[in-house]
Amino acid sequence: MDERTVFFLSDQTGVTAETLGHSLLTQFNSRKFQQVTLPFIDSEDKARAALHKINASASKSTLRPIIFSTLVQDEFRAIVREANGLHLDIFDAFLATLGAELGEEATHEPGRAHGMSDIDAYMKRIEATNFALANDDGGISRNYDVADVILVGVSRSGKTPTCLYLALQYGVYAANYPLTDEEFESGELPDVLTAHKSKLFGLTITPERLRHIRKERRALGKYSTAQQVRFEIREAEKLFRRYGIKFVDTTEFSIEEISSRILDSTGVDRRVRP
Amino acid sequence: MDERTVFFLSDQTGVTAETLGHSLLTQFNSRKFQQVTLPFIDSEDKARAALHKINASASKSTLRPIIFSTLVQDEFRAIVREANGLHLDIFDAFLATLGAELGEEATHEPGRAHGMSDIDAYMKRIEATNFALANDDGGISRNYDVADVILVGVSRSGKTPTCLYLALQYGVYAANYPLTDEEFESGELPDVLTAHKSKLFGLTITPERLRHIRKERRALGKYSTAQQVRFEIREAEKLFRRYGIKFVDTTEFSIEEISSRILDSTGVDRRVRP
Repeated sequence: MDERTVFFLSDQTGVTAETLGHSLLTQFNSRKFQQVTLPFIDSEDKARAALHKINASASKSTLRPIIFSTLVQDEFRAIVREANGLHLDIFDAFLATLGAELGEEATHEPGRAHGMSDIDAYMKRIEATNFALANDDGGISRNYDVADVILVGVSRSGKTPTCLYLALQYGVYAANYPLTDEEFESGELPDVLTAHKSKLFGLTITPERLRHIRKERRALGKYSTAQQVRFEIREAEKLFRRYGIKFVDTTEFSIEEISSRILDSTGVDRRVRP
Repeated sequence: MDERTVFFLSDQTGVTAETLGHSLLTQFNSRKFQQVTLPFIDSEDKARAALHKINASASKSTLRPIIFSTLVQDEFRAIVREANGLHLDIFDAFLATLGAELGEEATHEPGRAHGMSDIDAYMKRIEATNFALANDDGGISRNYDVADVILVGVSRSGKTPTCLYLALQYGVYAANYPLTDEEFESGELPDVLTAHKSKLFGLTITPERLRHIRKERRALGKYSTAQQVRFEIREAEKLFRRYGIKFVDTTEFSIEEISSRILDSTGVDRRVRP
């Protein structure tokens, strides 16, 4: 069957082109796309190489390629423009309108200015990542005084990746604390948590999904039995309700979505914006 | 001074609107923007609340707001459209063209289908994150057989956040190994690394920047002296050259950029695409 190729072109990482492209493509039922990212197109040679790759792909299929492009330098755009395909270019679409509004010419310089603000953002993201690592799994550190948010939930409900994503993406200080038999038996949260009740946010998950995830990790033993996961989830949700802790079901959401919902629901500010 | 407000509107996380908006805004020298993300606009009430927020902001400044929108449902778009501001809407700009090319109508359904493919992607990202955590800092695990890439560099050169980003964003299995006096004195890499030479990738950094980062962590002692950081970086780069290891200077790059450069340079495939 004929497969269509989608190219993401950029003089930087390609993340913007990819993000834009995925948003648009998921609006259609077609799903058979071969995806190719061509980042760092910052020379004439690289622009020509991209042109050849696209044309080579076009010649192999009856469906012409779709090209999402975020190239800002006119000379390289002109080269790539010759490629056989549907060109969707965010700078073409929006730059003139935005420039008119701001009363400014676009610089057409690739990428961001790497001024002190970027170094600041980098440091903040690193520091937040170190915080998440140190405060993972109710571990060694419990620096909850400086935490922006403390995620609580059963083992494998998505706490660690969510904390790391919040740190890396937004510089948010996210700690996490696993709920275990200790809490379930007493029906109470420990003082170390209740002292920061306004920072607590719960993660829950369906028993089926949790069992699936836990089995990947440890196939045998009580840990991944249907009975155990059902018990833990029921007790965890009971605790959330008892203490009035907002929570989200992570089953159907990506890590980005869980993270955004936490920020939206808690009102925690992004310390940096990627 | 009058500050302009930029809104990012979405029925999902807002990440696409933010990414698009930042790419465009960095093309201008204006930097005084107040940024507001309004995610999860998935009801008439929320659309009206967004409309009021934008208009309230518009009434406070002589500069009208700029609105980056990725709302896909026509009824909510119509409400938000009434807001006073410059509307830049990626679905307006591209959806019809893309639909014509694909020979399909857009679904206009918010967000992604949460089919099995998303669960797969989630699991892969979690597993890659667990791998990065277990194989951090040359630590407990050294599962280099299954690693996609092994980052090497001096302490605080950016290895850990880069590995975590590669895992969370792309599901790539990234381990890291810190270069220390042991390697510098012998001038050799350990067998555990040379056995996987093709997977090695180096990170370097300028002495000034490294010193700045290390001082944040530990202000006193040899660790962050000018002499020590200079020595370590020189020896690390000597090792990279001796073993023919590609490397990148992380000083001027964001975590996204470093990650993209590693994938681009090594040819390692993204296991998932966000």
